[in-house]
Amino acid sequence: MTKTNPGNFFEDFRIGQSIRHATPRTVTAGDVALYNGLFGPRFAVQSSDVFARTIGYPRSPVDDLLVFHVVFGKTVPDISLHAIANLGYAGCLFRAPVYPGDTLNAVSEVIGLKENSSRKTGVVYIRSTGFKQDGSPVLEYVRWVMVQKRDATAEAPADHVPRLPALLDPKVLGAGCPPLDANAYDLVFAGSPHRHGDYHKGEKIDHVDGITVEEAEHQIATRLYQNTARIHFNQFAESKGRFGRRLIYGGHAISLARTLTFNGLGNAFHIAAINGGRHVAPIFAGCTLFAWSEVLDTSELPGRADVGALRLRTVATKDQPCADFPLKVHARAGQGPDPGAGADDDPAVILDLDYWVLLPR
Amino acid sequence: MTKTNPGNFFEDFRIGQSIRHATPRTVTAGDVALYNGLFGPRFAVQSSDVFARTIGYPRSPVDDLLVFHVVFGKTVPDISLHAIANLGYAGCLFRAPVYPGDTLNAVSEVIGLKENSSRKTGVVYIRSTGFKQDGSPVLEYVRWVMVQKRDATAEAPADHVPRLPALLDPKVLGAGCPPLDANAYDLVFAGSPHRHGDYHKGEKIDHVDGITVEEAEHQIATRLYQNTARIHFNQFAESKGRFGRRLIYGGHAISLARTLTFNGLGNAFHIAAINGGRHVAPIFAGCTLFAWSEVLDTSELPGRADVGALRLRTVATKDQPCADFPLKVHARAGQGPDPGAGADDDPAVILDLDYWVLLPR
Amino acid sequence: MTKTNPGNFFEDFRIGQSIRHATPRTVTAGDVALYNGLFGPRFAVQSSDVFARTIGYPRSPVDDLLVFHVVFGKTVPDISLHAIANLGYAGCLFRAPVYPGDTLNAVSEVIGLKENSSRKTGVVYIRSTGFKQDGSPVLEYVRWVMVQKRDATAEAPADHVPRLPALLDPKVLGAGCPPLDANAYDLVFAGSPHRHGDYHKGEKIDHVDGITVEEAEHQIATRLYQNTARIHFNQFAESKGRFGRRLIYGGHAISLARTLTFNGLGNAFHIAAINGGRHVAPIFAGCTLFAWSEVLDTSELPGRADVGALRLRTVATKDQPCADFPLKVHARAGQGPDPGAGADDDPAVILDLDYWVLLPR
Repeated sequence: MTKTNPGNFFEDFRIGQSIRHATPRTVTAGDVALYNGLFGPRFAVQSSDVFARTIGYPRSPVDDLLVFHVVFGKTVPDISLHAIANLGYAGCLFRAPVYPGDTLNAVSEVIGLKENSSRKTGVVYIRSTGFKQDGSPVLEYVRWVMVQKRDATAEAPADHVPRLPALLDPKVLGAGCPPLDANAYDLVFAGSPHRHGDYHKGEKIDHVDGITVEEAEHQIATRLYQNTARIHFNQFAESKGRFGRRLIYGGHAISLARTLTFNGLGNAFHIAAINGGRHVAPIFAGCTLFAWSEVLDTSELPGRADVGALRLRTVATKDQPCADFPLKVHARAGQGPDPGAGADDDPAVILDLDYWVLLPR
Repeated sequence: MTKTNPGNFFEDFRIGQSIRHATPRTVTAGDVALYNGLFGPRFAVQSSDVFARTIGYPRSPVDDLLVFHVVFGKTVPDISLHAIANLGYAGCLFRAPVYPGDTLNAVSEVIGLKENSSRKTGVVYIRSTGFKQDGSPVLEYVRWVMVQKRDATAEAPADHVPRLPALLDPKVLGAGCPPLDANAYDLVFAGSPHRHGDYHKGEKIDHVDGITVEEAEHQIATRLYQNTARIHFNQFAESKGRFGRRLIYGGHAISLARTLTFNGLGNAFHIAAINGGRHVAPIFAGCTLFAWSEVLDTSELPGRADVGALRLRTVATKDQPCADFPLKVHARAGQGPDPGAGADDDPAVILDLDYWVLLPR
Repeated sequence: MTKTNPGNFFEDFRIGQSIRHATPRTVTAGDVALYNGLFGPRFAVQSSDVFARTIGYPRSPVDDLLVFHVVFGKTVPDISLHAIANLGYAGCLFRAPVYPGDTLNAVSEVIGLKENSSRKTGVVYIRSTGFKQDGSPVLEYVRWVMVQKRDATAEAPADHVPRLPALLDPKVLGAGCPPLDANAYDLVFAGSPHRHGDYHKGEKIDHVDGITVEEAEHQIATRLYQNTARIHFNQFAESKGRFGRRLIYGGHAISLARTLTFNGLGNAFHIAAINGGRHVAPIFAGCTLFAWSEVLDTSELPGRADVGALRLRTVATKDQPCADFPLKVHARAGQGPDPGAGADDDPAVILDLDYWVLLPR
């Protein structure tokens, strides 16, 4: 009997199963600095304690995606050690700001299972929640992931595909953002003159810039989150694998896309929720990422005059600028496994994310 | 009308124009750690809070060049998004120590403009000042940069080339260094037995060591400063550009050269001012940097018995050791755009920096 | 006369010589974050302040190996600037936990010298001790290193090879670990169900995972420790050297191996001592490291019911998984210079480490 983590195979999961994950993690100013060096975000709220305090935060909060990655990382040894692909996200809600010094842990529940017709794999639907040291939730999300079976002949549990929300209602947004003094929000310091009301539904923005990823960068980032998925770190094994090389953690693409959106959405300082997201193609070291966004909707938040929400679709590509707003139409966010590429799909698209951001009004 | 930052072209600048830059930035112990990992400085004052307190600092100050890079980074989106080359620096004065927890912001003034004869570009002279959260200045410097015109036929403002100081007077130095107890300065802990009085004018020092730069390193560093100049990050675009590859931020070379100078100048713990500096050739990932220095002058500081100043010229090369003190004679610091290479110029030289450092007396 | 550090050659050392090393270093949460990003350790005690406090630490201690590397780094400019090979370690004892904010310095004593028969080199035996700001020791160890002679004809001191302990007695272990409440130690959060009593002598564990090393990673790590050994950083020089490329700091392999052992030894949260260690082959960027461990012994600690000790042998390989527990039998830890490879030696082995770890009982 081995003492190493054998991981869970598809047939090991049960509907309703609750998994408390290992390795609580104190997030520090050091983690924030390294995240900044790896991605280069420029949102003033997260960059300056003074700016944050001026508008009503006690200090700069930790970048929402750093929180996401840390919580996600904890789930890997229990959920996705034998994953073939991370298929999608839904219902991701940021429920409280996180500050340096907070300690995060995570719990997951199995909410869906569906064996694939090959009987060699199955899709596991997981709702994960990140908590602070005091037990209060900071983040919850659902992801579904294709997991290997240990044994193709093993009996699988009955299929159960959960109903997932295609969209989070604006009414539930905002708990991750304290009440702010929007008048104290300095647009020059923030780097963009555009408040919430300056954006309109249907507006498209090419974020222009591109960022090339190096092996050392994605490895350092992914280890920072204590994400142990083997495919990101082991060139010896991956050289003989599907891609012949290390695959970059999908969350790396999300953080790069988020950074790129600053150019055009500089006041979208907080991700309130992710309605859905899909990694529609893998990325590798040497790729240059680009991104564009569409404003899918705008909304007020009930009872709040300080901030408003934009529902964005951000699409990232590899090695192709986004001036003509490329899409994979068959890979819309929040709709589960890709039903197959269509003639009008752009193969350069690697990420399709549908999410709510908050801006000062 | 786009919401992305269009940047300023040459014809957008006006003499006397004042620009308050975006993204105030709280500098943390995390930033310091990452800077240390990227460059490896060993000056005891910046390395040990105990050492710093023993001689009179409240704690270790942030490395002067990290302060410089953070302030510089803020100016990029407004000044040099359409830059072709960063031509030189002058009149750079460190006016106060910065400590972890301080929040920096920056303001620039346009002090000179000169269209080039091609009418496609022009040189912009900028005086930038970095401030702390309380509004007190920590750093000021002038740089001049060649910026594209949006439209070669556009009317350019009348030429105005500012008089720049070739040299900062020792009388203005020292505000970046609190009064110290030089007797408490431990030469063994500092790693060098040589105090201010041990150096003499004309002395040359080969700093011996070499450091090779990797793509991940310069990208992480430059993002840490929130410097968004595109040429450093986008291999897709640069593969078709001037150099066929990403150009390394010039400040990266300055920090590497500064680190190399520790070997020979281990007690030169503070850069008080930069009289002038020139990036005389680009550097790329894979280059190994070397450096040598000449003591151009030595000076007391008025009213201070604790520290004295050395005026140094530090020259850095790529892929060539510096035992024979190579130079580009036509590329002296502080003299504006390079008048052209001469027969006695060494093409390995990439940086020529003229600056004042402080050492304990 | 040069002001750069000439370093010490073999004939410069004297038995009994004491060397106080330069550059005291305050270890911060930033250093910890960068270490985490570079290696990805997941021991809960070091990851979560809350977890650490729950069992009796005042907060998360700094990773033992980060402390080791910082102390080691200080010794390089005085001991191993002219080193050809770091031959081995013995008698390494962690004597107190280190916390962010502590400032470390180091002192070494020359305890052995032996000229090699070529008269071109000699082996220097050094006992180094790391101290906190209050003068209390945190770490001591012996290493022996082959150092060049400046002049092969120079008279060398008489040979003196010290008796080194092959093994540290469990009685001396534990000062680096405060009294803990082992009942409060949460095995789920820690990521492993196996307490001290679950391991038995002779047990072998293949740690399964592999980690590929990039040039940027080992350079950033080694600079973080202010380790200036030239062979790690200077591709220009090394391209003409022994290996044609930069050699990775041996301590990098130790930290990677330690990280790999988490999978199978997740509760071995503290390295109490290193009995001996050997870098039996060099590693370079691009290598993928694997590791396996054998439990050489188990022991109680006198007077302590909270934690017990395991004596481990951890062997790391490059570009070869460890399912069949490869060895270099002629390269056992703690026995001095390699007596030569044997027919049953596996050339993939790069590190052989014999050490004591503590686990909750």
